[in-house]
Amino acid sequence: MEVDELVRYIRSIPDFPVKGVLFRDITPLLKDRDAFKTAVSGLADNFRDCNVDLVSAVEARGFIIGAPLAIELSAGFVPIRKPGKLPYDSIREEYSLEYGTNVLEMHRDAIKPGEKVLIADDLIATGGTAIACKNLIERSGGIVVGFVFLVELTEFNAREQLKGYDVYSLLKF
Amino acid sequence: MEVDELVRYIRSIPDFPVKGVLFRDITPLLKDRDAFKTAVSGLADNFRDCNVDLVSAVEARGFIIGAPLAIELSAGFVPIRKPGKLPYDSIREEYSLEYGTNVLEMHRDAIKPGEKVLIADDLIATGGTAIACKNLIERSGGIVVGFVFLVELTEFNAREQLKGYDVYSLLKF
Repeated sequence: MEVDELVRYIRSIPDFPVKGVLFRDITPLLKDRDAFKTAVSGLADNFRDCNVDLVSAVEARGFIIGAPLAIELSAGFVPIRKPGKLPYDSIREEYSLEYGTNVLEMHRDAIKPGEKVLIADDLIATGGTAIACKNLIERSGGIVVGFVFLVELTEFNAREQLKGYDVYSLLKF
Repeated sequence: MEVDELVRYIRSIPDFPVKGVLFRDITPLLKDRDAFKTAVSGLADNFRDCNVDLVSAVEARGFIIGAPLAIELSAGFVPIRKPGKLPYDSIREEYSLEYGTNVLEMHRDAIKPGEKVLIADDLIATGGTAIACKNLIERSGGIVVGFVFLVELTEFNAREQLKGYDVYSLLKF
């Protein structure tokens, strides 16, 4: 399967999670073995020569993309989670959302200074979550080698906020 | 790396999430590239000849194990989520916890009758979550080929509840 065939595995659902939002549902892609493999491999391609030490992703859907990407790139995996979920000493970042504010946490010992970290998520819209992840990683001394997203919603122009970083998405809407 | 070396990557944290519980933290294993790869490969080994169509896992930590396992077994991936998280028509299972109840949901069209499904999670304790997943899959006509867990807490004797199924765990405490 080719990457440009993947778009037909994304299901668009109107008014989820709230009225007026057109939700891009990746579950039809995930459940198709060829589509899922093509997506993970395609996301990895841009970073195979970067000596990525760690892939980091945010719960919950981000884990579905980030964890197999870590294996594909022979990297470790660092989960970033909602408050109170991580059991060990953590650092936190608060950021603004379309609907209010959000907090993310990462273990304080997750990343060693100088480690190269790739940030992965299923989807990027405004980029708020991506920036919070970047901040957690850079505060720990990690080097962000780039961002990968299965789906990019281009209308929010998140790339403007991620200027200076290598940003790669497989499917654009 | 050998599977029997993985135990030293599990960190035990007393009194998390509540007093009296000894939490088994898998994040040191995840962030080590060799340990994570050895774990995913080791979990897959028992099911390589089963023609698994789909791997299913529960958010959030289950996704970290289930998604790479799906890629490793050339299977698709089906997420099982907390209520209200899935965007499309879903079926639900309610199950009992020590205090109170919990609900899990799966898309109604996630599994086609006759598809072979492997259930994965990071950890099994009482088995309540595993049983709820099994029920969702079997109600959809899926065939549960087995269960895999990175960590099994044997004191809760969950295998008693999963009798008749192939249950495989990599690390036992």
